[in-house]
Amino acid sequence: MSATSMAAPSAATIEAIQQKAKRLSVLSMMATTAAGSGHPTSCMSAAELVAGIFFYAMKFDPKDANSPNGDRFVLSKGHAAPVLYAALAEAGVFPESRVMTLRQFSSELEGHPTPRIPGVDAATGSLGQGLSVGAGLAIGAKMDKSPTRVYVVVGDGEMAEGQIWEAASFAGHYKMENLTLIADVNALGQSEPTMYQHDMEIYRRKFESEGFAAEVIDGHDVAQVLAALDRAKATKGQPQAILARTVKGHGVSFLAGKEHWHGKPLSKEQLGQALKEIGLTIDVPPDPGKSYARTALPQPPPFSAPADPDYPAGASVATREAYGYALKRIGAVNSHVVAISGDVKNSTFSEIFEKAYPDHFYQGYIAEQNMVSVAVGLAARGKVPFADTFACFLARAYDQVRMAAISRSNINLCGSHCGVSIGEDGPSQMALEDLAIFRAVHDSTVLYPSDAISAERLTEAMAQRSGINYLRTSRPKTPLLYTKDEKFPIPGFKVLRKSAQDRAVVIGAGITVHEALKAADQLKSQGTPVRVIDLYCVKPIDARAVAAEVSAAAGRVVIVEDHWAEGGIGEAVFAALAQAGTSAAKSRHLAVTRMPHSGKPDELVDAFGISARHIVAAVGEIA
Amino acid sequence: MSATSMAAPSAATIEAIQQKAKRLSVLSMMATTAAGSGHPTSCMSAAELVAGIFFYAMKFDPKDANSPNGDRFVLSKGHAAPVLYAALAEAGVFPESRVMTLRQFSSELEGHPTPRIPGVDAATGSLGQGLSVGAGLAIGAKMDKSPTRVYVVVGDGEMAEGQIWEAASFAGHYKMENLTLIADVNALGQSEPTMYQHDMEIYRRKFESEGFAAEVIDGHDVAQVLAALDRAKATKGQPQAILARTVKGHGVSFLAGKEHWHGKPLSKEQLGQALKEIGLTIDVPPDPGKSYARTALPQPPPFSAPADPDYPAGASVATREAYGYALKRIGAVNSHVVAISGDVKNSTFSEIFEKAYPDHFYQGYIAEQNMVSVAVGLAARGKVPFADTFACFLARAYDQVRMAAISRSNINLCGSHCGVSIGEDGPSQMALEDLAIFRAVHDSTVLYPSDAISAERLTEAMAQRSGINYLRTSRPKTPLLYTKDEKFPIPGFKVLRKSAQDRAVVIGAGITVHEALKAADQLKSQGTPVRVIDLYCVKPIDARAVAAEVSAAAGRVVIVEDHWAEGGIGEAVFAALAQAGTSAAKSRHLAVTRMPHSGKPDELVDAFGISARHIVAAVGEIA
Repeated sequence: MSATSMAAPSAATIEAIQQKAKRLSVLSMMATTAAGSGHPTSCMSAAELVAGIFFYAMKFDPKDANSPNGDRFVLSKGHAAPVLYAALAEAGVFPESRVMTLRQFSSELEGHPTPRIPGVDAATGSLGQGLSVGAGLAIGAKMDKSPTRVYVVVGDGEMAEGQIWEAASFAGHYKMENLTLIADVNALGQSEPTMYQHDMEIYRRKFESEGFAAEVIDGHDVAQVLAALDRAKATKGQPQAILARTVKGHGVSFLAGKEHWHGKPLSKEQLGQALKEIGLTIDVPPDPGKSYARTALPQPPPFSAPADPDYPAGASVATREAYGYALKRIGAVNSHVVAISGDVKNSTFSEIFEKAYPDHFYQGYIAEQNMVSVAVGLAARGKVPFADTFACFLARAYDQVRMAAISRSNINLCGSHCGVSIGEDGPSQMALEDLAIFRAVHDSTVLYPSDAISAERLTEAMAQRSGINYLRTSRPKTPLLYTKDEKFPIPGFKVLRKSAQDRAVVIGAGITVHEALKAADQLKSQGTPVRVIDLYCVKPIDARAVAAEVSAAAGRVVIVEDHWAEGGIGEAVFAALAQAGTSAAKSRHLAVTRMPHSGKPDELVDAFGISARHIVAAVGEIA
Repeated sequence: MSATSMAAPSAATIEAIQQKAKRLSVLSMMATTAAGSGHPTSCMSAAELVAGIFFYAMKFDPKDANSPNGDRFVLSKGHAAPVLYAALAEAGVFPESRVMTLRQFSSELEGHPTPRIPGVDAATGSLGQGLSVGAGLAIGAKMDKSPTRVYVVVGDGEMAEGQIWEAASFAGHYKMENLTLIADVNALGQSEPTMYQHDMEIYRRKFESEGFAAEVIDGHDVAQVLAALDRAKATKGQPQAILARTVKGHGVSFLAGKEHWHGKPLSKEQLGQALKEIGLTIDVPPDPGKSYARTALPQPPPFSAPADPDYPAGASVATREAYGYALKRIGAVNSHVVAISGDVKNSTFSEIFEKAYPDHFYQGYIAEQNMVSVAVGLAARGKVPFADTFACFLARAYDQVRMAAISRSNINLCGSHCGVSIGEDGPSQMALEDLAIFRAVHDSTVLYPSDAISAERLTEAMAQRSGINYLRTSRPKTPLLYTKDEKFPIPGFKVLRKSAQDRAVVIGAGITVHEALKAADQLKSQGTPVRVIDLYCVKPIDARAVAAEVSAAAGRVVIVEDHWAEGGIGEAVFAALAQAGTSAAKSRHLAVTRMPHSGKPDELVDAFGISARHIVAAVGEIA
């Protein structure tokens, strides 16, 4: 349909959508009153918008609500969950009675949407992330040559989040014509009016600056809403922003435009008054208690075995570089892989993949939050996203990673340049907290290879693995420790030095494995054999197996890591030993404990206490 | 000086600044060649801009380079550090020879700027944070009624970061006329051209949309640079954006506008050729090796004792609410306190402070990254900033917190709504990783009160304490456990139940202390007395003291926390026991291990395994 040939929606259509909007408002109020908490007024400002999207614009099969063939809807302002649940109910995904179970312990209809609910692709509720998720869905659809359109409803409060503007730039730059943003500008935040209140022209200028086709409408005038949705659909070559002036609590006199109603349900009496004003009561039968939770969430698709990694014996290769080779090998056998980099592809080496598969690579520019949420959108479409930047800059997207876990998403993140071993660039570029933060993500996998072979094999494992997978790569070149036939199970570790006489166990990962090996050789020559463990999989951890190794050395263990002392390998091992009921009779934990600065990699590894010399000394203290 | 009365800079002035710019370029190249790494071309694009700011626009005392009376300079594009160091040297802060120690182990002139260096207020190098820091400096100056102006140089690559636009909105909204952004638009990122390359009008539209007085100039035409700086100075009622079209590697034919030169020093031969082209050689004597590091960094100013907290005996008060009362009490005796909230002041209760001291409160809107970096700017001026949002949303600003630590900044962060005990809102609003991420910040203090008294006293302690201080507050009301005379040393914990017959130690914090007390009462009645510890200070931790308590119960310990199992109280305790050489013979760690969902607080605390019932069972397993 082209813009010129569009027929205006009929009066009957407009009236039908208006009635739907009223039902969404009323159900939102009823559900939050029943729950005793929630955000009814945030739903009411969006009712006509959501009704127009769901019942006029979207192609959507309620029996297959997450189908990649249908259009997709993302409620970025997740606290308006009831209006989405009401729309799903009206569409027939589940009965209206289910909406009344909102926020109950046993209901999949949580306070904020998650993909447990049919029709939801990503969890929302941490604001400002939905447009990025939508962009990921949109580029995934484009890669699939699917006609899918993506609709994202954002609130005006959340447009203060920088991520919205990262996403807007990204969408504009890549001319995502299949992406429509609908802004519910109700002018009221949680605690006071929003920054721009109803100055709609500011929003128009901002989105036009980002390359959007932007228009301002009255968000409660259904004719305007439908016409705008039609124009959006007809727009070619750019994403669209429908900027809707709305009223929080629209339709009810004592709520409309009133402060101090954010996140508050109506009392039963207030609800009765509100329904009277709206002129609609809905008689909802008791809920039968059947769960409508999605049974199948996207899983990484299987793929045939890629070629083996190929390095000459004796090579020294940085694990960060091996990551790039691995991506390329996987890309040859798995067309679902999509890589995205935060303007560092020449440091993280995803450029090796890009050169081989340019259509499967996106430049994410320096916008890590958007990059991670785009990956969530891609994963929701069944893609296998790999996103990379320096490990320290993934900290920038930590809330997005947290939300990805709540989204039950399958995303792969590679952080390069970990630890003091990066050298001269100094602490702003050194990740010293990444193991801690990625370990503290639900059901995450945290991998930390020490050589190119393990880096490649672990990258392969990520592509097959669900959940949040994190690969920590290092800047320096390191000699190969393994051959291509070595297996790297998850969980697992490698015992690189072992004897029946071991006086202690030294556990490292990444560059500290190489320091541990140097120390072990020196200690052996001094008559103190030690066991050396490469803990390439930091999470999950096989607590019994680790405990068995430590017990074999009479509980004497030295853990050494290029990371702060908190939350990394040391604490992972101590927790594992406690879990296994094993005493670490004598332990030493070598980690970075002072603020590092610039210097040569070797200088820093030594100065900050994690070099072979320090391992030898620590073993000497306990063994 | 008003805009109309400004005299144009003389030809001699222009020539002098041009010569300064050449010196900055040449020194940047020389220093990076000497270091063998660094970003000379990123310095060269900014040379005229930095020269104009330092030697024409700024009031700046090189003998007191961080004086709050002087103008301030923030190099947001921190990788251009050498051009800043060269400017500081030319201004007389340290000799030119010192610039040649760039990136050496023993030099304070690191790869990216930190406040170890005189004249630097905040560490940069994670991109996109400088404008927020500048905004913090600017509002601090305004509060002090100081004529200080703040100049922030940003790169175009980093303008892809959403935080830049959070900061721009913030600066525009608060009409920061004392804040000038200078954008070095050299069109080349690290890995490829930037998104908008030299489309200067896009940047102009974007900054104008944010309320800036924006103009586009040729960043290598010194007359234009100086005129723009004059106009910026004369602008009233809005921040200014000088958008400078520049060339990366400007001035040297084989570098200018060339890709693949990012972050690469010139060889000695290339340097010789470059200096010949520029027509300037600088003879720098050997560096005497004297350190010019700042000896005194800002510390929180002392203040007289505030009034005591005041609650009726038997009261139940949420720790989040107590935080607000404490801020108000501190505000009465400490005029340096500034609070900022991410549009949740009515949930975190900083609105109590706002009502008392509206001139010391800033609405940060929903933009956590900007909020934290603004706090860093405020702290650099000697303010005592307290920033708050839901604890889970501080994850959004984790990179900014990381950089605050590298900045040796003194900031106070309060995160409310921790854990599953928030109830119905669901996991997107539950902080379950905040202890892990804040523990993994260098030299941080992590506090987690269990009642209103301890929350108030710990908030007082934060205002006196340097570094990154984090307070974790809870949503539910909890009964008072302490009276106003109780002291809460850092590190420290409270033993709430104790007998000589204790069969185990139960360690909790926050709401789990209350569960532990319930469990202890029940266990005691069953003939199994247990010790109960309120670990209100999670970091630092007094390892020996904790170990002594655990040893007193024969090494039997149950740790219970409303947090993921990784990186929180459990691992802190296990690490402390290992450090103290104490065996936890038998331990149980109760933490959240499955993805939570909505429900009532008590339902969730029980369902996710951290209620009194589970503590009783865990003690039963080991004691």
